[in-house]
Amino acid sequence: MTTMTTTMMMMMNDALDLKSYLRERAALVDAALDRWLPGSTAMPARLHDAMRYSVFAGGKRLRPVLIIAACEAVGGAPERVLHAACAMEMIHTYSLIHDDLPAMDDDDFRRGRPTNHKVYGEANAILAGDALLTEAFRLLADPGANAGIDPAVTLKVIETVARCAGSQGMVGGQVVDMESEGKPIDFATLQYIHTRKTGALFLASIQSGAWLGGGSAEQVAALTRYGETAGLAFQIADDILDIVGDQQELGKDVGSDQARGKATYPALLGLGEARRRAEELRDLAIAALEPLGGNAEPLRAIARYIVDRTS
Amino acid sequence: MTTMTTTMMMMMNDALDLKSYLRERAALVDAALDRWLPGSTAMPARLHDAMRYSVFAGGKRLRPVLIIAACEAVGGAPERVLHAACAMEMIHTYSLIHDDLPAMDDDDFRRGRPTNHKVYGEANAILAGDALLTEAFRLLADPGANAGIDPAVTLKVIETVARCAGSQGMVGGQVVDMESEGKPIDFATLQYIHTRKTGALFLASIQSGAWLGGGSAEQVAALTRYGETAGLAFQIADDILDIVGDQQELGKDVGSDQARGKATYPALLGLGEARRRAEELRDLAIAALEPLGGNAEPLRAIARYIVDRTS
Repeated sequence: MTTMTTTMMMMMNDALDLKSYLRERAALVDAALDRWLPGSTAMPARLHDAMRYSVFAGGKRLRPVLIIAACEAVGGAPERVLHAACAMEMIHTYSLIHDDLPAMDDDDFRRGRPTNHKVYGEANAILAGDALLTEAFRLLADPGANAGIDPAVTLKVIETVARCAGSQGMVGGQVVDMESEGKPIDFATLQYIHTRKTGALFLASIQSGAWLGGGSAEQVAALTRYGETAGLAFQIADDILDIVGDQQELGKDVGSDQARGKATYPALLGLGEARRRAEELRDLAIAALEPLGGNAEPLRAIARYIVDRTS
Repeated sequence: MTTMTTTMMMMMNDALDLKSYLRERAALVDAALDRWLPGSTAMPARLHDAMRYSVFAGGKRLRPVLIIAACEAVGGAPERVLHAACAMEMIHTYSLIHDDLPAMDDDDFRRGRPTNHKVYGEANAILAGDALLTEAFRLLADPGANAGIDPAVTLKVIETVARCAGSQGMVGGQVVDMESEGKPIDFATLQYIHTRKTGALFLASIQSGAWLGGGSAEQVAALTRYGETAGLAFQIADDILDIVGDQQELGKDVGSDQARGKATYPALLGLGEARRRAEELRDLAIAALEPLGGNAEPLRAIARYIVDRTS
């Protein structure tokens, strides 16, 4: 609690340094991931190597940081949600490993490094993804990690994360996205894909942080509005970056979504209108945080960062 | 409760009719799976079709029945564990879909029908497996399904199922199994594979049923011993069936494990010794149930069936 309070006070005194905040929280997540993921000494070594290869591939840890920031926004310490933060990153990583497979997007590179199946082979990549998804749920239910948390709250988190990651959440979004490749799609389908493929786990991260942090009903409602709007802003900004981003900064092929004829906001609305929507959603997200006061400053900065980032 | 008591009384009066027991319990599971799995009207239809195709492909529902039988052995009603039974079948089904993929075992048929990826394509098969695994955990945490169950017990079930299905459980066993193909392996490695690939979820089923059914520490300990021994007997019997079974009854290629140079008990110990071990384990499993009395009669019959079955 001491660390948290000090950090919070620093935020009140100075303008929030988002880069430091993101770096510090990501470091907490990385250390926890290293602690919780079985090492290469645990059999089967190759599987655990494959899992760690993609988990430690230089991701920004956005979703874990969202969980921590939502927890802090309701006055909870980061340590209270580290297991959930790691679980969310494992789910995100599993989805990237499976999306990159030859049968799916068939990507050879991710964040500038060869994709999992290029290094470990397809079978191991499929199984590493399966194991990360499974380990995420084990960690969410881990008795040690949940010490001091009401088991009913933990169950609510597990049910929500699973719902948002499953056939009517992230996986469903991925299926409709694949089905829509190279076809003209309407705005409703685009929204369906974005809400589920990215938005669902974005929102689940925010809500999990709020619940595990002990947020009140009013606080959870405010954070839910934030999660819905900022999550969509994030996806629109991602679509825009795919068109205008710099290849080196993104570490993937720029324009790759376009090349595949994938449904994107800029493709459907035009670049200017897409940008305007992202900014509007960013402002709505920030406005939603009003009842939370200074503790929500990191989430406000994250909403700005999401829309204004260049990578 | 009335249904359960009537069934139990029938068991006490007559010798247990295992076929009827298995059929009745499997019917409960099938009806619950149909209720809980999203239908083809739920978007994305093709994903839900793919999930249902493999879930309703004529499996024996052994793991779900184990959960129900363990629950009944400690005096609980089947209805109390139907969600866990369905979750376990979803996990089992996801593992079959992924195992059958071209990058893994590359099987075209399963239970006499084309495998999932042959019907729905590789990408959808991968995602249908992912969605089933995810939905299993959602169902395990489902608030409606867990009404009247201590949330701490539900969390213990989730943690155990995830541990037994993950990188040091079922997935780990599959990786070591793949790595061992066509290589001479020692007995310790064979045991590692069997304990994890099949044994882990077998045991998790028994323990989940015992916990959710409200079993005492003594009852859970007895059922744990049963789960360990009967689970291994099941895998040895499966290995034996692969050699001597009838192709039509099994619905898969007989001798396919042998053809791949897969590690099996008969290959390592000889057919006679493998059979002797399976029978010994069956007897140990039945002996472990002693403290449970008549309520455990279905589990005794299942242990006999596992070893004596021909398909």
